[in-house]
Order: sequence, then structure tokens, then C-alpha cells
Amino acid sequence: MTSSYMNEAQLPQRVLLGAGPSTVHPRVLQAMTMPVVGHLDPSFFRVMDDVCEMLREVFHTKNSMTLPISSTGTGAMETACANIIEPGDEVLICRNGFFGARLADIADRCGATVHMMDTPWGKAVDPQMLRDELKKHPGLKVVGVVHAETSTGVLSSLEELMDVIHEYGALSIVDAVTSLGGHEVRMDDWGIDICYSATQKCLGAPPGLAPISLSPAAMDVVNNRASKVQSFYFNLKDLEAYWSQTRAYHHTSPINMTYALREALRMMMEEGLDNRVHRHARVAAGLRAGVEALGMTLLAEEGHRVNPLTAISIPEGIDDARVRRSLLNDYDIEIGGGLGEFAGKAWRIGLMGESCREKNVFAVLSALESILSKEGYEVAFGASLSAAQRTIATFDE
Amino acid sequence: MTSSYMNEAQLPQRVLLGAGPSTVHPRVLQAMTMPVVGHLDPSFFRVMDDVCEMLREVFHTKNSMTLPISSTGTGAMETACANIIEPGDEVLICRNGFFGARLADIADRCGATVHMMDTPWGKAVDPQMLRDELKKHPGLKVVGVVHAETSTGVLSSLEELMDVIHEYGALSIVDAVTSLGGHEVRMDDWGIDICYSATQKCLGAPPGLAPISLSPAAMDVVNNRASKVQSFYFNLKDLEAYWSQTRAYHHTSPINMTYALREALRMMMEEGLDNRVHRHARVAAGLRAGVEALGMTLLAEEGHRVNPLTAISIPEGIDDARVRRSLLNDYDIEIGGGLGEFAGKAWRIGLMGESCREKNVFAVLSALESILSKEGYEVAFGASLSAAQRTIATFDE
Repeated sequence: MTSSYMNEAQLPQRVLLGAGPSTVHPRVLQAMTMPVVGHLDPSFFRVMDDVCEMLREVFHTKNSMTLPISSTGTGAMETACANIIEPGDEVLICRNGFFGARLADIADRCGATVHMMDTPWGKAVDPQMLRDELKKHPGLKVVGVVHAETSTGVLSSLEELMDVIHEYGALSIVDAVTSLGGHEVRMDDWGIDICYSATQKCLGAPPGLAPISLSPAAMDVVNNRASKVQSFYFNLKDLEAYWSQTRAYHHTSPINMTYALREALRMMMEEGLDNRVHRHARVAAGLRAGVEALGMTLLAEEGHRVNPLTAISIPEGIDDARVRRSLLNDYDIEIGGGLGEFAGKAWRIGLMGESCREKNVFAVLSALESILSKEGYEVAFGASLSAAQRTIATFDE
Repeated sequence: MTSSYMNEAQLPQRVLLGAGPSTVHPRVLQAMTMPVVGHLDPSFFRVMDDVCEMLREVFHTKNSMTLPISSTGTGAMETACANIIEPGDEVLICRNGFFGARLADIADRCGATVHMMDTPWGKAVDPQMLRDELKKHPGLKVVGVVHAETSTGVLSSLEELMDVIHEYGALSIVDAVTSLGGHEVRMDDWGIDICYSATQKCLGAPPGLAPISLSPAAMDVVNNRASKVQSFYFNLKDLEAYWSQTRAYHHTSPINMTYALREALRMMMEEGLDNRVHRHARVAAGLRAGVEALGMTLLAEEGHRVNPLTAISIPEGIDDARVRRSLLNDYDIEIGGGLGEFAGKAWRIGLMGESCREKNVFAVLSALESILSKEGYEVAFGASLSAAQRTIATFDE
């Protein structure tokens, strides 16, 4: 057997318009090649402090407990649940997509009694419905909400939902994996207790770290647990000691990934948070206009559409796999397929971080026009493109 | 307040002789800058397959379930425990240092009834003592052993210990975090059931991934659990599906770290596994000779010394922190301090992967001679260096 591993790895240059990872800027890739230092080296402590300081700005919070977990976003979801939930705790999950279901699964594995509030896929979580539901569960400890459902492209109104949750005295766990950096997330102003994200979406770093932040009220709950946190790796009190107090060794930090995150956050600071959120809005508006000009339907209800991720209903008779294969092989463009209920029925086009550029909207619409036309779908060449151009050109008027 | 994060990060070029991370070769750093592709991109599947194939060679196993966990070594320790242990299972941990204690802590968090077999720090786990202990616990499910105790520099004889464990029908969990790539680890020949490591020690990649391998017998246990694995993130059946079966999405892989691991393993294949193990033995022998010529005492008993990590008793009256600070600030050399029982009492000098080079032995011994002499410790300049040189020069005779 000849072993392919003896050759140098060959990776294509993709346009990354899936649900993440998104394109990583050369500056961020380059940052990963800085000299490795020890996880207890004073020079690394400075990198850590910079990262935490910038993460606080991104989360719009003063929470001292703000740091990147050494895992991808799913690990941060687990960190949130494992540290907050004790066996028998009552938890309500607002489920309107794949990641709400995952949050419920993880809460269940932490021993919670999980109640579900289901909203049809494609719809936002409704504050009044949540209020009615909360009345039924007086002893509820936590409510879990996904800000931007990556499976459906639906954005729920966090500010209103947080008000309702606090009326009923519960803590909130907010999944901001796809929204942070692409939509406004104001932890302190909106009263979010626990919020987590991931580096490979709108933050513009490679996958492998997952920022999390906890309010003082949430940390009180963590500090006053009766039982041990079931995970050692994700134990926040130990991580807090390493990140901000005694610098006591807990695990060996992913040093180079932390360099990458620092540089990605620094680029975000240079651009300005508001500018970045605005860019996501403008570019996504262009994509949506183009998709609709192609005669296709957006899956998320109007007024609740995620800018970094647009979910589209695949037209009747069109072969999902063949179209995505052609996009990848003939155009080097990756888009995402459907998840869960939407498997085979949806395309998910991500415009996140460095991938969120007008040129990418033009590229994916042109390629889709060409492929769909070949697949027998009626296409007026250039129509979707000009709709996108017009929308982007007039966006700020 | 001026924010330091707006400046480019400044990292010094350290000689990394701590307990890991070790030096990362420029080829491996460079591999991280290859274009990011999606975690479901066929080109990434090829990278994954290459990594798994090389990991099987490194573990000396045919285990189909062999892959890198998206965490550091502690996460792999948790993966091993969380997937194998169900609440109420009886587990025996052979504790002869800090990491044995950590393994017991994690097993406990997984709901195990944990029995301890304590061996004094600095001594290897004794097979006969283990046999006597196993007689007392007929229903034991798992025995946990640390191959190379990073806190003490002690290497236990896995082959003999595995024989004893199998006599009593238990499964073995082996921590090879510091040994894999620096000592021989033969999973199949020795009958190791679950074995895990980390990338930042003798494998020569940055920290952030943790290889693990499970025998078919161990996977039978995982597949026939009565209860859910308490961790979603570390759930091996889902990871197996993504890595080797349906390629079903579980979490977004740390793409660039996987590139790095592939390149580091490729460099290991180029060198040859046996050559790498031999290099660790030769270079470590030089360090030990030098340390003893300096009049200092090795903490690990003779015949059971870890090559990638040498633990030294700090001489009476010498200030631990001041010496290590001088090594770092005046010579750019990092060594490790003591952990747990040995905090303040031991230095731990790592010679792992790319750090395991003769030049580094000469550098650290010269620097130590200079610093210790300044601290009032009696030193004959050059004595430790020439002892190291002599030992290395005659090592293969």
C-alpha cells in the first residue's frame, strides 16, 4: 500500500460560504506561526489578557468571567450546561432548530429535567409564547435560547426574550455561535447571563476555540453548586483561576490558536464592531435579493433573518447533492446543506466574517445561476446578480 | 486606558524545555497556514484519513477507532473515562503522581466508585502490588495507569502491568500523554485497551488536539452502555461516525490544527518511529549525566526514568522561582516547576519532540551552571557539560 500521508498535503483554495468555518484572513493564519511559548509564560499571559479584553468588547460586557474555551462551539455549549445545571434542575429549551435540540440533549446529559418549547423551524422564538410557557414552570432554573439558529437562518429577538426570562427569575443561556460578530449581542444591556460563541464564524479565526462569558449572577450559581461539575475539562472555576487569578495550571492552552484569535479580534477592533455588524447586514441583504430574484424562497420568516446565514428552500425537482458538488468542484465554492428536518431540502449560504464580502455574493449567485440553468431550472442570466448589486448599492440610502 | 491589544503580538523565541508545549518545527507551523476548507470537504477527509493512518502507526495498533480529540490531553483523559465508565462502575487508579490523581478525579466525576492504589511519587507502579490489589476487587471494570508520569519523570512498565490487568479481566486506560513518540507504546502487542496522548509533547505539534485509540473490546463496552455518555462533545460513537463512517457532522473540526498534526506526524514517519524513540533515549541520557555531574538528584528511580521528562530535586537552599525566572529572562529557556507534592521542590526538564536535541541539553546545563554558581551553589564550570557530551558520544557503543 502506498501511503498518501508521505506527500505534502494538498488543499484547494475554497470560497467558504458554508455554515462555518469561514475564510480566515492571511494575517490571522500568519499569527499562528508565531513562536510557541509555554502556557505559563508571562508573554502568553499578555496574549490571554488581550484576548479577554477584546472578547468583553465583542460581548458588550464587563463580566470578569469572559474567556475562550479550548474546544469548538459545541464544547462551550457543554461548558455552559455542565457548570450551571445540577442533577434534577428544571430547564426550558426554546427549540426552533437543530441547535436548540442539541442544547436540550446536552442539558439532559447534565441531569436536568428538560422542558421543551417548540417553535416551527423557520420561525423565531415568540416572547409572549415564552411568557405563557414560563407561567407553567415556577421552579425553572435556566432557559436556553439560540440567538441565530444556524439550521434555519432564524434570528430571535434576544432583548425581548431576556426581559421575559428575568420576569420569571430564571437564568438565560444564549447560543451566539453564529451571531457574535455578525449581529449585535449586548450581554450587559440585555441581561444575558451565559453566552457562548465559536471562533470560525463571524469572528474570523479558524475553528478550535469557543468564547464564553458569564454574568456575576451566573458565576454565583457556579460558585454555590452542591455537586461537582461533571466535566473536569470544562470546569469554569479552574479555568477562571488559570485565566484571571492565580494562573494555576489546568490544561495546556492551545497556544497558536490563541494567537489566531487575538489577531482576528484585533482586526475586528480595527474595523469597528458596528461597522462589522453593518457589513454583515448589507452583504446579506444583497444575497437575499439575489436569491429571491432567482425565484427561490427564504426559509426564515421576514424580520427574523440571520445576516451571517441565509437558508434557502431547494426548488422542487432540483438535486441537492449534485448542485453542491458542482459548486464545490467546478467553482470551488462551499455552501452548506440542510440539517435535521431540512436535510436535502435546504441550502445554507454563510456570509460570515472574512467570507462576508460582496464579491462572494456575486460569485455564488453567478455560479448558482449557471448550475441551476444546466439542471433545467428557469434562469434569466444576470437577473439575480443585478438584484443583489442594486440592493447593495442602495443599502445605505 | 491604552489597549495593548491594538499592537501586534510580541512573542519571544523560547527554548521550550518544560513539560510541554515543546518546540514546533517551522514546517508544522507553516502547515497551519494552508487554506481553510470546510470540515465536510472531501479534501479535508483525506487529511483526516492520513492523520488516523499515521496515528495507528504511532500507537502500534490496528484499532479502527483511532483519532484526535478536539481538545488538549486532559480532554482525551475525560473522553476515555466518560465513554467507558457508567455510574457505579468500579475503577482502580494506579496513582504515583499528579496525573494519576487527575485521572481518579475525572473517573469520580463520571460516577465511578474509585479505588486508589498509591505508590510513592518517584516510584514506578509495581506489577506484583497491582496483582495483590486486583485480588481485592473482583468486579473491577477498568484500571487506569499513567505510562510516563509528567509530575515525577517516572516510567511504569506497561507491558507487565497490562498482563496483570488482563489476568483479572479488567480493561486498561493508559495515559501516554508524555510517552507517545518518546517511548515505545505498543497498544496491540501489549494489550492496551484505551490509550490517549496529546500533540504538544513528543509528537511535535502545537497544543490543541489529543490522539486517542480504543481496542475492539473497549469499543464493545462503549457500544453496549446502558446509559448515555454524559458528555456530548466527547461522545466517541458520534466522533467515530464523523471520522470513519458516515462523515456525519458532529462538531466543526479544528481544521488548521489538524493540518499541523498531519505535518508533525509526517515528520515522525520520515525520521522513523524507532529512530525518534532512540533519539529521546540518547539525548535524555546526556541530560541525566549532566545533572548528576552538577551534584543534583534525579527524582525517578533508576530503570524507570522517562526520557522526554527529567525531574530533578532542587538543591537545598536554592530559590526555585529565582532560578527559573533567570533561565527564562536571561537565557530564554523554559523549564517546568514542580507539581503537587513536588511544588517548589523539583525542576522538570522536558526533552520532547523537536526540543529533544543535544544543543538544548548543552544550553540548559550551561545556563544552570552559571545561574547556580551565582546563587552560591558550588559549581565546576563545564563539568556537567562534559559529562553530558561524553555520555551522548558513547551512547551507541
